[in-house]
Amino acid sequence: MDMLTRIQQALNKELTLAHRPSAPPRLLAAMRHAVFPGGARIRPQLCLAVARACGEDAPALTDAAAVAIELLHCASLVHDDMPCFDDADTRRGKPTVHKVFGEPLALLAGDALIILAYETLARTGVQHPQRLAALLMTLCEGTGAPDGIVAGQAWECESRVDLGQYQRAKTGALFVASTCAGAQAAGADPSGWRGLGECLGEAYQVADDIRDVMLQADQLGKPAGQDAHHHRPSAAADLGLLGAMAYFRRLMQAAIDSVPECPARSAMRHLVLQESERLIPQSACDRVEREHQAAHLARPSVVTCIAGPA
Amino acid sequence: MDMLTRIQQALNKELTLAHRPSAPPRLLAAMRHAVFPGGARIRPQLCLAVARACGEDAPALTDAAAVAIELLHCASLVHDDMPCFDDADTRRGKPTVHKVFGEPLALLAGDALIILAYETLARTGVQHPQRLAALLMTLCEGTGAPDGIVAGQAWECESRVDLGQYQRAKTGALFVASTCAGAQAAGADPSGWRGLGECLGEAYQVADDIRDVMLQADQLGKPAGQDAHHHRPSAAADLGLLGAMAYFRRLMQAAIDSVPECPARSAMRHLVLQESERLIPQSACDRVEREHQAAHLARPSVVTCIAGPA
Repeated sequence: MDMLTRIQQALNKELTLAHRPSAPPRLLAAMRHAVFPGGARIRPQLCLAVARACGEDAPALTDAAAVAIELLHCASLVHDDMPCFDDADTRRGKPTVHKVFGEPLALLAGDALIILAYETLARTGVQHPQRLAALLMTLCEGTGAPDGIVAGQAWECESRVDLGQYQRAKTGALFVASTCAGAQAAGADPSGWRGLGECLGEAYQVADDIRDVMLQADQLGKPAGQDAHHHRPSAAADLGLLGAMAYFRRLMQAAIDSVPECPARSAMRHLVLQESERLIPQSACDRVEREHQAAHLARPSVVTCIAGPA
Repeated sequence: MDMLTRIQQALNKELTLAHRPSAPPRLLAAMRHAVFPGGARIRPQLCLAVARACGEDAPALTDAAAVAIELLHCASLVHDDMPCFDDADTRRGKPTVHKVFGEPLALLAGDALIILAYETLARTGVQHPQRLAALLMTLCEGTGAPDGIVAGQAWECESRVDLGQYQRAKTGALFVASTCAGAQAAGADPSGWRGLGECLGEAYQVADDIRDVMLQADQLGKPAGQDAHHHRPSAAADLGLLGAMAYFRRLMQAAIDSVPECPARSAMRHLVLQESERLIPQSACDRVEREHQAAHLARPSVVTCIAGPA
């Protein structure tokens, strides 16, 4: 079974468990709307890939960790989309949860997804109690205060922000949790996999900034130009489009270089390259570079003006 | 050390751990505002009392369970107070989190408190891995979908609601989690303590409905008359004030009767009676009954009109 199918099935199983007659039906519908059909599922894929690279010996626990990570990610999207933050109408190409179910249920669906993430881990973790505690800590560190994705989002409410710290928390933290949890679910030491999560997390944030500038809403599946609109820190604004693209490539290379020596190293390298191409295709980088050079040539430089032939 | 002091110290310790220079300071301030100075802390007190009754042998784990329960309760209050729900200006006698820090930080502070609850449990639970998994499940069941407090709140977004199911989830679920977690933290079987949580949970919800009708905002520490204002199901509306009070007394007695045989049974009975008096003083019940009888006597009944002497 390919990783994406495995993740979709595991997510579906968990959400179905919550479907009991005693539950408020619109809450369940809002939770399902937030999780399916889903995006690239890159975080749980990363968790699975690292678990495999570490000689996965407890697949149900890997599934639980991967599902928990994706549920936490989906919860953060539901809350980030709400009117008091991005006030976004669309996400993953369809109306956001609060647009379909209203603000109260969007708020509660996000809360319920966070709790379901920990419940998923607890349900399977009971068979692996030693690994459960470590996995829990990893997920909490990746999501809460002081350095998880909730803290990252909260930096948007501060008057002074360090771009690196903001991005490490807002995006990087859950990528680090994904790689570390993959190792921990397989009973391995997570420390060697931290670098991969850090590099990929930063690369994804940079890619998100680039895509927010370059693509249209129908290609993004969500409103475009949101960083500028909300005056959010952005690598594309800081470094320019070309600079941000070069930085993205360097981060993806660093991600590949960080993968520890293991039999699955080439498979992991392949996954990273594939994601890199999916996020920011090389052809797009080449096009932006050509346009930049053309603009540079068309506009005579000060040196040309001064030193050129009469 | 009395239970309340022990809980305050344990809560303070956990919130202080999140205070690191890398964290967004306003998020930390919003979290602290949501937790301190706090209300009666009845849920964590209940957790501690049950753990003691079960021969508490891991006090740090009891503390962690009690703190986690209170953090989850505080998180639910922050989110319930937000404009898309109760739009409350005050809570526990001071401005609500969104009034002081704005909606985005109230949303995030609630999320961060939920995550901190699980992190608190994980941090101490690593020493007691078998108990950790059971405690986690108890807390998740008490808070999430299908039957936890988030589901209870979500019943307010449904067009058809069963009052009992709504109250069991909205208030009862976290009381059940409190008694069960107390037993589990002490390594005991929680099943005998479920009834106490169920009775107290329902009694608290009924008391809340009564107090919402009887008291003024300055006595409640939050806006009064909210149930009628938001057209919420309410025992006071369903049974009348006198009927609701009688029902409350019966539930408190059932709570006392449910306490399993144990050396601490009389201490537990004392705690329940003390809470009963704090919530709805006997003097208030007597006054309402007197007023009811006076009104009944002053207004001739149909029977009197027909059968009375000319």
